[in-house]
Amino acid sequence: MPAVAGVTLAAKACGIKYKNRTDLCLLAFEPGTKVAGVLTQSRTASAPVEWCRRGLKQGRGRAVIVNSGNANAFTGRRGRMSVERVVDELAGRLGCGGREIFPASTGVIGEPLPDERMLKGLHGLVRGLRPGSWKAAAQAIMTTDTFPKGATRKARIGGTEVTLNGIAKGSGMIAPDMATMLAFVATDAKLPAPVLQALLADGAGCSFNCITVDGDTSTSDSLLLAATGKASHARVAASAKISAPLLKEFRAALRDLLTDLAQQVVRDGEGAAKFITIKVTGAASAASARRIGLAVGNSPLVKTAIAGEDANWGRIVMAVGKAGERADRDRLAIAIGGVAVAAEGERVEGYDEAPVARHMKGQEIDIEIDVGVGRGRATVWTCDLTHGYISINADYRS
Amino acid sequence: MPAVAGVTLAAKACGIKYKNRTDLCLLAFEPGTKVAGVLTQSRTASAPVEWCRRGLKQGRGRAVIVNSGNANAFTGRRGRMSVERVVDELAGRLGCGGREIFPASTGVIGEPLPDERMLKGLHGLVRGLRPGSWKAAAQAIMTTDTFPKGATRKARIGGTEVTLNGIAKGSGMIAPDMATMLAFVATDAKLPAPVLQALLADGAGCSFNCITVDGDTSTSDSLLLAATGKASHARVAASAKISAPLLKEFRAALRDLLTDLAQQVVRDGEGAAKFITIKVTGAASAASARRIGLAVGNSPLVKTAIAGEDANWGRIVMAVGKAGERADRDRLAIAIGGVAVAAEGERVEGYDEAPVARHMKGQEIDIEIDVGVGRGRATVWTCDLTHGYISINADYRS
Repeated sequence: MPAVAGVTLAAKACGIKYKNRTDLCLLAFEPGTKVAGVLTQSRTASAPVEWCRRGLKQGRGRAVIVNSGNANAFTGRRGRMSVERVVDELAGRLGCGGREIFPASTGVIGEPLPDERMLKGLHGLVRGLRPGSWKAAAQAIMTTDTFPKGATRKARIGGTEVTLNGIAKGSGMIAPDMATMLAFVATDAKLPAPVLQALLADGAGCSFNCITVDGDTSTSDSLLLAATGKASHARVAASAKISAPLLKEFRAALRDLLTDLAQQVVRDGEGAAKFITIKVTGAASAASARRIGLAVGNSPLVKTAIAGEDANWGRIVMAVGKAGERADRDRLAIAIGGVAVAAEGERVEGYDEAPVARHMKGQEIDIEIDVGVGRGRATVWTCDLTHGYISINADYRS
Repeated sequence: MPAVAGVTLAAKACGIKYKNRTDLCLLAFEPGTKVAGVLTQSRTASAPVEWCRRGLKQGRGRAVIVNSGNANAFTGRRGRMSVERVVDELAGRLGCGGREIFPASTGVIGEPLPDERMLKGLHGLVRGLRPGSWKAAAQAIMTTDTFPKGATRKARIGGTEVTLNGIAKGSGMIAPDMATMLAFVATDAKLPAPVLQALLADGAGCSFNCITVDGDTSTSDSLLLAATGKASHARVAASAKISAPLLKEFRAALRDLLTDLAQQVVRDGEGAAKFITIKVTGAASAASARRIGLAVGNSPLVKTAIAGEDANWGRIVMAVGKAGERADRDRLAIAIGGVAVAAEGERVEGYDEAPVARHMKGQEIDIEIDVGVGRGRATVWTCDLTHGYISINADYRS
């Protein structure tokens, strides 16, 4: 990954939980950087998520500090104090305010965070900041991820090229614990905080909010986007709409980058053997299409059928039916691997399962669903539900 | 199970899909019988469910006809015609209107129903009707259920004893296909249709609507309650409230019977090794408590942790957080097997995992959650998520 002007990174092994690997990472931004974020909807959000929520109101940021191995979630007052200690120490070293530090933690829930190990590591971390350490940062935030996740894109704003880099982790486990999704994106674009936030919400809506592994929402999900403003492109007004021509290319690049990262998370889903793309068309609205897609993508019966390479489209019908969204059973159409299997409420005449069965044996499964009631469309990505998922989540700790 | 005055039953092997077992069953009611029902919320409901929905508007019934092996769901016009043919033939034999026949089908989705096999079996079925054939009926509606499910209760209405019998199936699979829940209850009580419907809705709310195996809603879920009116108790007005003293014992018996049947369904959940009771208190309302309980009961991460006998209460915190209901993280309390593990938003001081770990090794797991915001309460039942579930749903058809 290329460097992003105004961004330096460092990673360090602090022994928070793991041995012989990095588990603390710092992304530092030059003064003037704007930050936007999309955080978990969980009602039991972690202490770092709460801190970030307040910081986002100001929309300015100098650093993201992330540890793996402990989620600092459901840790009460002690957890909040851990956040404050780490943030205060880091803000002192960087010469900024505490609200300009964005903390994130991923790992086991309910265990007190050994923040003294993080505090000890901060000095070396700040000294080790380098513009080229993106991969090291991606590795430090992994839990049981099987590969580090990163993506980069270029876009022009008013003729000037800007860079977007992103790293993510998920859907790994710890101890074991729940899948947590963290993603951090930085760009040298110069964008006012409200525009940055609108662009991020737009991008998250068609990427991270369209993936599911098991439907479980983490206490810690955090997606942050920092814009250092080091690029010398035309000024973007704080009142600019994300549909403005000036932002067209950047918006598309951001969507593309976020989708790339989100798909990497699904490909590394716990126990996943197959990557599933679910395209929903003909729904009452885009939001309705997304809910139908997620109902299919979260259905244990659909996911196990795919794990078994069984073109059991009856389960897709069931999942559409349970979504609670407007759907016309007698106009519903389903295709698997590009082959129509059902149309107008029943199996297609002369249906031949052979090509569909062949498609099911592949690693990339495509499902198309036309709901038959409107023009809303959405695409959702998920993975299959295998013995591997059960092993990771039930057999690990005994 | 004792006989219920006014009810006869029969079962027969028609070879709809299975060999060497009964797969068609008839419950016949004497004239004057009132029928109430609770049907699937699925937007892709089966043809029999649609027929029942219309019949329930009249609230009168003479028979329930059930086949296993084929759900007659997503079968289009052909499926509707199959229902009409079977219903017409049976109505002719019983001398009643078609809307007094309640059909139900369970099994594979999307395959045309071989109704000619059912039609051939009807003559023998009607001739074989007997008051004592409850167990035979319970067996004929099984799919991959591992045991037939039935329950009976007695209650008095105004001093006169009445009987309630019920049978159910689920959460078995076919071919394999989705879990479908069917339950049929009959009583000799004499109750007007609106009162019967209100009692059934009340009972379903604290029984069948409080269980989950995998969160997948069937196209075919049907719970029907028939009251033959053969008992000679005091008259119940059509305007009677279900809270009336006259109905107190009956209502309690019905709730109890439905809960018994619902729990049998969960105990026979696909691959289930443990029966889990989730008691939620302190929620904003009873409905909110039920939604929180179902979020915990449906969470793959909670269910796999229990399969692994791991007291991983952090996942319970996560599931409460994702329910989207009002909850106060900092007042949340969790107990497992009667032992407090978390209180006021963090792990209890001096928490000893040993007794909880012992509880997790048992087959009956009790989880108590106090949400800390109100007085709403509900109990939800579920089972664990095991390799057996994956095997049944992914490995069967290859």
